Amino acid sequence: MRATKRVRLAPEARRAQLIALGVELLATRRLDELSVELIAKTAGISRGLLFHYFSSKQEFHLEVARAAAAEMIRRTQPDPTLAPVEALRVALTSFVEYVEENPDNYKSLVRGAASGDADMRAIFDETRRTMAQRIVDVIAAQGLEVQARVVLAIAGWVAYVEECVIRWIDTGTVSRDELLDMLTKSLPAVALSATDGEVGTLLSVLTADQAIGAD
Amino acid sequence: MRATKRVRLAPEARRAQLIALGVELLATRRLDELSVELIAKTAGISRGLLFHYFSSKQEFHLEVARAAAAEMIRRTQPDPTLAPVEALRVALTSFVEYVEENPDNYKSLVRGAASGDADMRAIFDETRRTMAQRIVDVIAAQGLEVQARVVLAIAGWVAYVEECVIRWIDTGTVSRDELLDMLTKSLPAVALSATDGEVGTLLSVLTADQAIGAD
Repeated sequence: MRATKRVRLAPEARRAQLIALGVELLATRRLDELSVELIAKTAGISRGLLFHYFSSKQEFHLEVARAAAAEMIRRTQPDPTLAPVEALRVALTSFVEYVEENPDNYKSLVRGAASGDADMRAIFDETRRTMAQRIVDVIAAQGLEVQARVVLAIAGWVAYVEECVIRWIDTGTVSRDELLDMLTKSLPAVALSATDGEVGTLLSVLTADQAIGAD
Repeated sequence: MRATKRVRLAPEARRAQLIALGVELLATRRLDELSVELIAKTAGISRGLLFHYFSSKQEFHLEVARAAAAEMIRRTQPDPTLAPVEALRVALTSFVEYVEENPDNYKSLVRGAASGDADMRAIFDETRRTMAQRIVDVIAAQGLEVQARVVLAIAGWVAYVEECVIRWIDTGTVSRDELLDMLTKSLPAVALSATDGEVGTLLSVLTADQAIGAD
C-alpha cells in the first residue's frame, strides 16, 4: 500500500475553515438546516473526519453561531472618528445590510438562540449585551452619567431594533432610508424616556433630534 | 363487575379544565417542564385518559400556551374610559404584574415561542400582533393618522417592553415605579422618533410627555 500525498491543514486551521464554511452556507439556509453531510460534502471531506474536529453536530452549530455573531458585531462596530449620532447611523446601516444579506441566518440566530438550548441562548445574550454595552460606552465617553434606567432602556432598544428590522424585511411598507432614520432617532428617544424627563433635558434632546434629521 | 358511579364532565369541559390546570401549574415551572404525568396526577386522571382529550403532549402544550397568552391579553386590555396615557400606564402595570407572578412561564412563552416550533411561534407572533394592534387602534381612535413607520415602531416597542421587563426582573437595579414610568414614556417617544420629527409634532408630544410625568 502506498500513502497518497495530500495537502494537510493543521487541525486548528481546518477547524476554522470548516466554521467559516458553515457561516458562508448560512447566507442561504437556516442554522437548523445546516447538515453535517452538506458541510462535509462542500469541504470535500468525509462525515467521519468532520467529527474529528467537532465532538458533535451541536458543537459545530454552536461554533458557527458564535462566528456569525462575531462577524455581525465586527461589522457594526461604531466608528470612533465620527460624531456619536453619525456613528450610530453608520452602525445601523451596517446592521440592516447584514440582516438583508443573511435574513434567514439572522432570524434563526435571533429565534434559534432564543430557544430552549442554553448554550445557544448564551451566545445570543452575549451578542445583545455586547451591542448594548458599546452604546453605554459611547454615552459614557461623552462625559454623561448613564443611569441604571438608561442601561435598561438601551438593552430594550437592541430588541426594538431587531424586531423593527425583521418586520421591515417581512412587510416592506417602509423605505430603507425611513427605517434608518427612525432607528437612529429611536435611541435618543428611548434613552430620554428613561430619564426624569425634565423640560430642559427634553429640549436639549429635541435639539439633538433635529440635528439627526438634518443632513 | 359493578361500575363505580363518578362525576363525569362533558369532554369539552374536561378539556378546558385540564388546560386551566396547565396554566395554573405554569406559575411555578416552565412550559417545557410541564409533564403529562404531573397534569394527570394533579387532575386525578390516568395518563391514558389525558390523551383521550389531547392528541399529543405537543397539542396539550400548545393549548396551554394559547390559554396563557389569552389570559395575559385579557389582563392587559386598555380601559377605554381612561385617557390614553393613563390607560397605557394601567395596562403596563397589569403587564408587569403578570410577568412578576409568572416569570418562568412568561420567559418560556417568549423564548419557547420564539423557538423552532412553528405552531408555538404562531401563538407568540399573534400575541405580539394583538398587543401592537390595540395600541394602533387607540392612536387611530384619537383621530390621528398612523403612518406605516409608526406601525413598525409600535411592533418594535412591544419587543422593547418585553426585553426591559425580563431584564428588570433579572437585575432589579431599577424600582418598579421607575420601570413603569420609563415604559409609559417610551411609547410616545418611539412613535415620535418614527415620524418626520417636525418641531411642532415634537413639542406636542413633549407636552403630552410632561403630562405623563405629572401625577
